[in-house]
Amino acid sequence: MGKDDPIKRFEPNIDRIKRDILALSRITSPTEPGYTRLSFTDEDRKAREYIAHLMEDEARLTVRIDPVGNLIGRREGEKQKPALLLGSHLDTVRGGGRFDGVSGVIGAIEVARRFEEKGIENIHPIEVVDFIAEEPSPFGLSTIGSRGMAGKLPPKLIGSLRDDAGRTLEKAIREIGGDPANIDKAKRSSRDVLAYLELHIEQGPHLCSKSIPIGVVTGIVGISRGKVEVIGKNDHSGTTSMDVRKDALAGGSEAVLVLEWVCAELAGVVGTVGRVEVFPNSSNVIPGRMILDMEIRSLSEDLLHKAASSFREELERIKEKRGVQILFEIGISSKPVVFDMNMVKRIIRVCEQLGILHVKLPSGAGHDANHLAEVAPTGMIFIPSRDGRSHCPEEWTEFEQVCLGTEVLACTLAGIEKDAALSSGHFDF
Amino acid sequence: MGKDDPIKRFEPNIDRIKRDILALSRITSPTEPGYTRLSFTDEDRKAREYIAHLMEDEARLTVRIDPVGNLIGRREGEKQKPALLLGSHLDTVRGGGRFDGVSGVIGAIEVARRFEEKGIENIHPIEVVDFIAEEPSPFGLSTIGSRGMAGKLPPKLIGSLRDDAGRTLEKAIREIGGDPANIDKAKRSSRDVLAYLELHIEQGPHLCSKSIPIGVVTGIVGISRGKVEVIGKNDHSGTTSMDVRKDALAGGSEAVLVLEWVCAELAGVVGTVGRVEVFPNSSNVIPGRMILDMEIRSLSEDLLHKAASSFREELERIKEKRGVQILFEIGISSKPVVFDMNMVKRIIRVCEQLGILHVKLPSGAGHDANHLAEVAPTGMIFIPSRDGRSHCPEEWTEFEQVCLGTEVLACTLAGIEKDAALSSGHFDF
Repeated sequence: MGKDDPIKRFEPNIDRIKRDILALSRITSPTEPGYTRLSFTDEDRKAREYIAHLMEDEARLTVRIDPVGNLIGRREGEKQKPALLLGSHLDTVRGGGRFDGVSGVIGAIEVARRFEEKGIENIHPIEVVDFIAEEPSPFGLSTIGSRGMAGKLPPKLIGSLRDDAGRTLEKAIREIGGDPANIDKAKRSSRDVLAYLELHIEQGPHLCSKSIPIGVVTGIVGISRGKVEVIGKNDHSGTTSMDVRKDALAGGSEAVLVLEWVCAELAGVVGTVGRVEVFPNSSNVIPGRMILDMEIRSLSEDLLHKAASSFREELERIKEKRGVQILFEIGISSKPVVFDMNMVKRIIRVCEQLGILHVKLPSGAGHDANHLAEVAPTGMIFIPSRDGRSHCPEEWTEFEQVCLGTEVLACTLAGIEKDAALSSGHFDF
Repeated sequence: MGKDDPIKRFEPNIDRIKRDILALSRITSPTEPGYTRLSFTDEDRKAREYIAHLMEDEARLTVRIDPVGNLIGRREGEKQKPALLLGSHLDTVRGGGRFDGVSGVIGAIEVARRFEEKGIENIHPIEVVDFIAEEPSPFGLSTIGSRGMAGKLPPKLIGSLRDDAGRTLEKAIREIGGDPANIDKAKRSSRDVLAYLELHIEQGPHLCSKSIPIGVVTGIVGISRGKVEVIGKNDHSGTTSMDVRKDALAGGSEAVLVLEWVCAELAGVVGTVGRVEVFPNSSNVIPGRMILDMEIRSLSEDLLHKAASSFREELERIKEKRGVQILFEIGISSKPVVFDMNMVKRIIRVCEQLGILHVKLPSGAGHDANHLAEVAPTGMIFIPSRDGRSHCPEEWTEFEQVCLGTEVLACTLAGIEKDAALSSGHFDF
């Protein structure tokens, strides 16, 4: 695809996109808060039935479930492989919203529908994927489907992880239609995947606050997760004068503020204490122990280390000053993923050709793309989240914005196809 | 009792005191941590049976249960009334220790046993009381027995408070042998109570750290209890840059430190955030809401107000700076109780005459004495808590120290009796 080539608009059907997103928002748990569709539940199964029907009846895709449980609709191409993968996930967090994951799945199905309606004869097979269990699952693991596709789900692990009811992940995969005995066959490689593209809501305030409709994702930040344990002394809140206290909550509170300060000082880093436990957490006892779950995120591994080490230094100071014990463990739980530069450039070029305002930005949240990037060149397209909200019932993206994102997704896919046609000489897009 | 009168030593029996405290430490819950004997439980009932036996068989007291459920052993005097009351409580907090409350009950029984063994003919009746439910009870209320004795337990309240199993306090009182239908008859007044004396562990580090065996309690600090609610915004921890966050945990952490600072600046005040709740308390969500249960204690009502108002000013500053909402409510939940000056002087004089090192100090913890001080002149004698620990399994006081405290308790009681004898002319102690 030359720089000056005009791109034909795919004109995704906004009514159909809206119908499907709203239909899926009704296939959620009747008892959980917000829009809840946890992976491996009845709701998850019903939502998959809904999109399997769309894939088969509207997009004429051939539907299968791969060994790890990913639902895949395939449109054959002139070649047998490699395939172009589009996808996202249908599962939500508890109390989540209507757009996270769903926008990308419906966007991908809409691309396939438009290919069908326009009678485009594609060279590469196109596969639309609903990845199983992208969000933290009842088995304590997230991005299960994409891990499986990257060959990172050992049989031993799926046999040992259990949900609260004692069911193994292996059994859950079998129940959803997967074939856990052949989990290794879920693995894909660059031999059979040409590229992976995902449309997703931003889940942050950047695009919304600046009124930019498209974010071109440069990569996914790495995450260092850590645990701080402050050990002071439980004492009676009335009988212990201020000067002799070893208040673990006060020490932990300083740690919260210090992490905030360290990360605010470094550009390109965010850090959060999201979860705390205080012991005994009783109104008339000076807390003797506090645990803080913290994390640092950055697209730069160097910055992850730098922030962690500044935080560690500050914890030492708190420890000295207060005479409390502080234990601190931290490690990189996921490395930064920098997306294939050509994919980033392709998406930017599509935006330029369509005249769409866009911005490059890293993803602060993890996605299935983390693992797909190990399989094949990967690109992600972000659309705005209203007020930056996500993982909550207020999560919202205008349907026009989903539609525009779908246009960019389709045109990027078409661009890859067109380049293949130009080089092979037998495809006229 | 003149200033120079020698006091005869009561020589409490340390072996008996040790035997009884250790025996009670074994009448605790087999499933709860530490030494747990919650009020209105089987353990509580069995512990009361144990001391009822001591009262009847060893101290020759007449045992009854008053309408609110207090267990009372009475030694008649020459007069019918007013009586001298000694007491404390057998119930513990969950995961508590062996000395809080128990020392005072066994000390009081030992005084009665020594009166019996020495054949002392007392003028005023002596009553040894095990107050029901001094600690926070399953009904969400503490000092139930002493409240009842002060006439502050309306029938409506005992009919409406329920434990987790749905049992009303009224039913629990009936089951423990009380007569809730006649709860008003539990009320005592200065017409039938001459004085109340309580021996108790300090529950703070003051006596232990200075190696002072006796604390003469000047009063019980008042408590202002408050709730701070910080309302920020739940946001994704990875996608929300540091500058746009409304982190309720960070705001709440500042509040914790500000309370610590305000109270450290004011002499005679302690302040604590003992309990917090963070929402959603999930490691990858910036907390949108935090609730802090805080309290301020002081023997001066003015200082309670002053500390609360400085804290409020600081909260305003946090609110402005962070752009979060902060709701703050605080009220005096118990007013400071300043003990009868003559009772304080009596206990000091006993210490001087026995040559015991002592110090005046306020009690930072609430006690049944809070309510008894409304009934009659009240005095409290503190004995050291090792390392200031209490409400935990490590709670410890040497048996020699319990014995010495019992000596001071007995001599103070005897002093009141002697003065009565001198003024009535018919008692030779």
